[in-house]
Amino acid sequence: MYKETNKRSIVKGISWRIVATTTTIIIVYAFFGRLDLAIAAGMIETVLKIALYWAHERIWQKLRWGKQRIEPFNLWFTGLPLSGKTTIADKVYEELKKLHIPLERLDSKDIRDVVPDIGFSREERNRHMKRIGHLIKTLQNNSVSTVASFVSPYRESRKAIREMVKNNVVVYLKADVNTCKQRDYKGVYEKALKGELQNFSGVNDVYEEPQHAEIVIDTTKTAVDEAVVTIVKYIKKNYVK
Amino acid sequence: MYKETNKRSIVKGISWRIVATTTTIIIVYAFFGRLDLAIAAGMIETVLKIALYWAHERIWQKLRWGKQRIEPFNLWFTGLPLSGKTTIADKVYEELKKLHIPLERLDSKDIRDVVPDIGFSREERNRHMKRIGHLIKTLQNNSVSTVASFVSPYRESRKAIREMVKNNVVVYLKADVNTCKQRDYKGVYEKALKGELQNFSGVNDVYEEPQHAEIVIDTTKTAVDEAVVTIVKYIKKNYVK
Repeated sequence: MYKETNKRSIVKGISWRIVATTTTIIIVYAFFGRLDLAIAAGMIETVLKIALYWAHERIWQKLRWGKQRIEPFNLWFTGLPLSGKTTIADKVYEELKKLHIPLERLDSKDIRDVVPDIGFSREERNRHMKRIGHLIKTLQNNSVSTVASFVSPYRESRKAIREMVKNNVVVYLKADVNTCKQRDYKGVYEKALKGELQNFSGVNDVYEEPQHAEIVIDTTKTAVDEAVVTIVKYIKKNYVK
Repeated sequence: MYKETNKRSIVKGISWRIVATTTTIIIVYAFFGRLDLAIAAGMIETVLKIALYWAHERIWQKLRWGKQRIEPFNLWFTGLPLSGKTTIADKVYEELKKLHIPLERLDSKDIRDVVPDIGFSREERNRHMKRIGHLIKTLQNNSVSTVASFVSPYRESRKAIREMVKNNVVVYLKADVNTCKQRDYKGVYEKALKGELQNFSGVNDVYEEPQHAEIVIDTTKTAVDEAVVTIVKYIKKNYVK
């Protein structure tokens, strides 16, 4: 982040006034051929315009017109493993970045890589979700919006997130277990089915479908790019007008 | 957060040009008494100054002079329970807020209130610290500095924080266990001594003194306000010039 120092603003203001007044003097001189009067006019202009520029700024500061309030939002992708969360959330993030709003991407895997042993039991997952809620809330305090993708299989933890953050937009990526299994390039479903992975949502642990999702996308029928357009449109309509 | 829309910038630019040119016309007319020439001069001024203002902006954009880079920092308060972390960190936060930099306050208690059952074992504390490190790093990605206060008794977790974040400033608040016990308005030392609290740093768990703290303050000898001045001075000197 860069900050404009007070000195820089002052020097910049003076340099502009020199350019502007010199221009006026040259114009007046060209029209009337009297350098003395042209300089006198330029001097008066300098004093007057400094005062007028100040007044102009003060008046505009009181006008709210054309000022757009940006409310931080939280886009929350939920769905079974391999339902398409990371893929779609990544693309949505790239699109929203183009709007030049402060934005952060949070993905389950990235955080579990940094903090191993978070655990997958109901209790551990719920605690994890509360911490993610706290993280999002802290970012929102600083005007940063979020694009978050987490399996988040339990209603109570999604509810906890909703209660902690502002402008929560749940995107439920619907995909039946069989489709997800077919996409299983990571081999995680196979492991879960063999019993090598415990608490695996959709296999040996529940995935409780969201009942209040703002956006529901059936990823067995909808192409990735189409899903991205739908979600970005929703955000633009509701939060970044 | 508010954003200046493009429309607002355009209308504001036009409104200023109207004010500025009208002023020029009035001055020229007052000097020479020829309204037609005054208006002609004003028209030329308008065209010229729009181009000149643009050029002036472009030149300044290339000048780095007077632009102050603000690097996000992390002020990390560590010390025994009741060594004065929260009290001093709160005051430092208030002072630094006056510098108008994006700043967030993180306190152990606030987070443990939101997420109960974080635990106090070595393993649980270390995991907790990694998550706090991740939180600070995410805030720093968004130019937000932090004032964090955590007992953080283990060297390995303070080291983990230092490796995760930029511009880490450890403030070690030194106070012997006896002094802290005397300040025990919360009654926590008493409980720990009775064995009602486990893993209590300084009583039934270690507190490993920092060896690389940027600032060490002996809170048995230094007044709170004096400590605040020392810390704020350090930050101003190194990060918010």
